[in-house]
Amino acid sequence: MPAKIIQGRDLSEQIRQRNESRVRELADKGVTVRLDAIIVGEPESGIIYARSQERKCQSIGIDYRLHTLPGNANDNELQALIDNLNSDPNVTGILLNLPLPNHLDAPAAQYAIDPYKDIEGVNPSNIGLMFYGTPINAPCTALAVHTILNEAKVELRGKNITVVGQGNIVGKPIALALIAEEATVDTCNKYTDNLMAHTKGADILIAAAGVPEMITADHVKEGAIVIDVGINSVPADEAKGTPARVVGDVLFDEVSQKASLITPVPGGVGPVTVAVLLQSAIDAANKQLGTRRFR
Amino acid sequence: MPAKIIQGRDLSEQIRQRNESRVRELADKGVTVRLDAIIVGEPESGIIYARSQERKCQSIGIDYRLHTLPGNANDNELQALIDNLNSDPNVTGILLNLPLPNHLDAPAAQYAIDPYKDIEGVNPSNIGLMFYGTPINAPCTALAVHTILNEAKVELRGKNITVVGQGNIVGKPIALALIAEEATVDTCNKYTDNLMAHTKGADILIAAAGVPEMITADHVKEGAIVIDVGINSVPADEAKGTPARVVGDVLFDEVSQKASLITPVPGGVGPVTVAVLLQSAIDAANKQLGTRRFR
Repeated sequence: MPAKIIQGRDLSEQIRQRNESRVRELADKGVTVRLDAIIVGEPESGIIYARSQERKCQSIGIDYRLHTLPGNANDNELQALIDNLNSDPNVTGILLNLPLPNHLDAPAAQYAIDPYKDIEGVNPSNIGLMFYGTPINAPCTALAVHTILNEAKVELRGKNITVVGQGNIVGKPIALALIAEEATVDTCNKYTDNLMAHTKGADILIAAAGVPEMITADHVKEGAIVIDVGINSVPADEAKGTPARVVGDVLFDEVSQKASLITPVPGGVGPVTVAVLLQSAIDAANKQLGTRRFR
Repeated sequence: MPAKIIQGRDLSEQIRQRNESRVRELADKGVTVRLDAIIVGEPESGIIYARSQERKCQSIGIDYRLHTLPGNANDNELQALIDNLNSDPNVTGILLNLPLPNHLDAPAAQYAIDPYKDIEGVNPSNIGLMFYGTPINAPCTALAVHTILNEAKVELRGKNITVVGQGNIVGKPIALALIAEEATVDTCNKYTDNLMAHTKGADILIAAAGVPEMITADHVKEGAIVIDVGINSVPADEAKGTPARVVGDVLFDEVSQKASLITPVPGGVGPVTVAVLLQSAIDAANKQLGTRRFR
């Protein structure tokens, strides 16, 4: 029986509506949710992303500001900008566009962002607080996967979950978030010997490797839940007559015949990630109204 | 063929000697390695541990100071003490004895310790920096397991490693450290369905569940490496005629006939953990001589 397809766009629209009314409620209390993004240099994809984000923020009433530093800015200049945003009480969320130019120390910059304003959850403190089960802000992809599983009413404790991919932005934060839910979590990478042996037993399979359509039906247990976090651009292939397209890490047509629940690409995890990022921005503004537990 | 037994006491003695000469070298440069421990209330095991630690520090020239707060101290008093130690340049390492009395916020206290002085690596920042592969101070049990595997010249990348136990102090930090080494890491807990299915395929099995002798030969692949992090006190059993004893999570007599390499309890991971903690105290003093990468 083909899998139920999780429509990320529908879920993200629900979250967007909730976000919008929460921003309005905060405004009624005199609180403006504000998101300050930092871009260093002129990375094309970063600028496209920033414009799209600005539109999304404005559409629900979040005050979005973009700060750009020249491509030759040094660590001190970047840290000084972050310090300013940290200490400005009007700034409730900070986003640092990655990758930074190579000469900059990205971990040191992430570390410098106030954990309460770090809405992407990239500050090592936020990683550690998620690890301890006392999160302030958690990485968005981990939140998105969690939201999707939650929405589908999937119990996580005791489940066999395999995460394919151990990247710092996606695979590892997801694994950490699921360990915090007391799932049995197997994390694999490109050095994993016999990947299939690790994926075949999974009740929930999370593909976060960034390798187009690498997960086939043979990797998947009958009835498994498959969450595809990959977003890969595949160029047109004239020989095969296929156009340029965006695919996930999962061979959807095949795997969707075997899984019980599956997210498509595009239209699965991606839109939910965008929506939960703004949700985090609102949560962050809210938390800054209260007392800081972690100073 | 019976397993080679890793003698943790021998390894810890090697580390102790290296520690001693490093403390002397630092003293020659005018740097005193100093370790300030905090105990709240009068927890019996904490005080025994502190006295033993004091002796170990003194024997290699580390200046050990114990700070005690009354059992009814509040979060502000604890934070004030930590702030003082953070800002005192003579203090190079801080140890907070756990568990704290229930009314105190342990994560907030751990968070308050300067990551450069947090020699147990419990500050969420230090967990996150280990996650990113840019550690300042890492949790001692994770360091001890890593040191043992390193000493035995075990390649970690691509290895199937199963960690049984997902506690914040032992199981989870070990899993995180091994993921940072690009191993394939499966983490299990008491809710794991069919634990054997997860342990039987492991090249390296790490037992950190705190359940006496739960890992039997049936759990272990022929030739696997077995690291036993459990330390469990088992009372005397008059019916069976067995005395009170300390055992690990692994049924040693059985498993040692099947594994290729194994750590005993006592005398395995335990003494190495003690030695690497003091090594961390020395590393911390050393790092505080340089420029802070993470402010």
